[in-house]
Amino acid sequence: MKNMSTNITWHNTTVEKGDYRKKNGHHSGVLWFTGLSGSGKSSIANQLNKLLYEKGVQTYLLDGDNVRHGLNHDLGFNEADRKENIRRIGEVAKLFADSGTIVLTAFISPYQEDRDGVRALLGENEFLEIHVDCPLSACEKRDPKGLYKKARAGEIKGFTGIDAPYESPDKPEAVVKSDQFNVQECAEQILTLLEDKNWIKGKEGA
Amino acid sequence: MKNMSTNITWHNTTVEKGDYRKKNGHHSGVLWFTGLSGSGKSSIANQLNKLLYEKGVQTYLLDGDNVRHGLNHDLGFNEADRKENIRRIGEVAKLFADSGTIVLTAFISPYQEDRDGVRALLGENEFLEIHVDCPLSACEKRDPKGLYKKARAGEIKGFTGIDAPYESPDKPEAVVKSDQFNVQECAEQILTLLEDKNWIKGKEGA
Repeated sequence: MKNMSTNITWHNTTVEKGDYRKKNGHHSGVLWFTGLSGSGKSSIANQLNKLLYEKGVQTYLLDGDNVRHGLNHDLGFNEADRKENIRRIGEVAKLFADSGTIVLTAFISPYQEDRDGVRALLGENEFLEIHVDCPLSACEKRDPKGLYKKARAGEIKGFTGIDAPYESPDKPEAVVKSDQFNVQECAEQILTLLEDKNWIKGKEGA
Repeated sequence: MKNMSTNITWHNTTVEKGDYRKKNGHHSGVLWFTGLSGSGKSSIANQLNKLLYEKGVQTYLLDGDNVRHGLNHDLGFNEADRKENIRRIGEVAKLFADSGTIVLTAFISPYQEDRDGVRALLGENEFLEIHVDCPLSACEKRDPKGLYKKARAGEIKGFTGIDAPYESPDKPEAVVKSDQFNVQECAEQILTLLEDKNWIKGKEGA
């Protein structure tokens, strides 16, 4: 046996964020979608994810489907747990950004303080706060999951927009008006932003 | 404005695990390194990560450096918190696997029950338990962080291998003997396993 333990060198040779980005050929960071229930966050984020995927970008989408039943299944909906929910999502998003991924998150995340907490975890130009802006009346009219109806009936307490506040972003990097533009259009607006910010390569010749 | 809210279709077009794998050109899943403190888990995982990166594989490494101070900074070292630590790491690893990434984790993770809990989160052939097997005496002799010395002096309580148990894996997919092979050799042994299991492409003509 040619190498015994005494010969082992315990140096760490780590692959770092810059290496992952170089391999993937694009920037990495967090696209944080925030907005009322029913505003279209998840639909727009999914569509954008698809557009990015089709361009060969390394992406991932964190949303209620893959987080609430997994990592955060121990959390409820009281104030402390909602805060912890967003904190953990932010930390996981940071790990994805560190791995060279453009990670999209789609959560109501109604409090500026919580969103600012996530922003503070990331570096400059690694966190884009995207307000999916849709009037409450339009969201309530859509009510795709019947949640507003339950909230109005008092069956759900502390529902954002009904008996709990939604704090619109102070200084979002983008606002998409999902009552005026369809899902594809909203997704394309963000795609253009990513090209403008050099997160991904723009159209050839553009 | 050609699209008003009434025209919006709210279908979700999701990119799924199979799509990400197709894009990346390899399988995805979790390489779960387990072993005593000082056994070489982190060094071997880092070296393997580097080898995979050089092959163009989409990888990421979760270890104490990027998890304990971030996602799990609220956890201590009592039994419940150690269990929760491993659970969260497992859930995050699952998300990375879902994103088409081969994710490596390097944590002592001394309890079979906890490791089995993570295995249960993943699908078949998505979780490889890798025992970095090194005698306690050799780990203690290395003692790269001086932790064994502190544990022997009673300054650290509940230290794995000293006054807390390490449960060797029941049925690990791989065992690397880090007292007999150096870091590079151990990493290459796992690389070969990944080729054999068709997680990644093998050598041409092999």
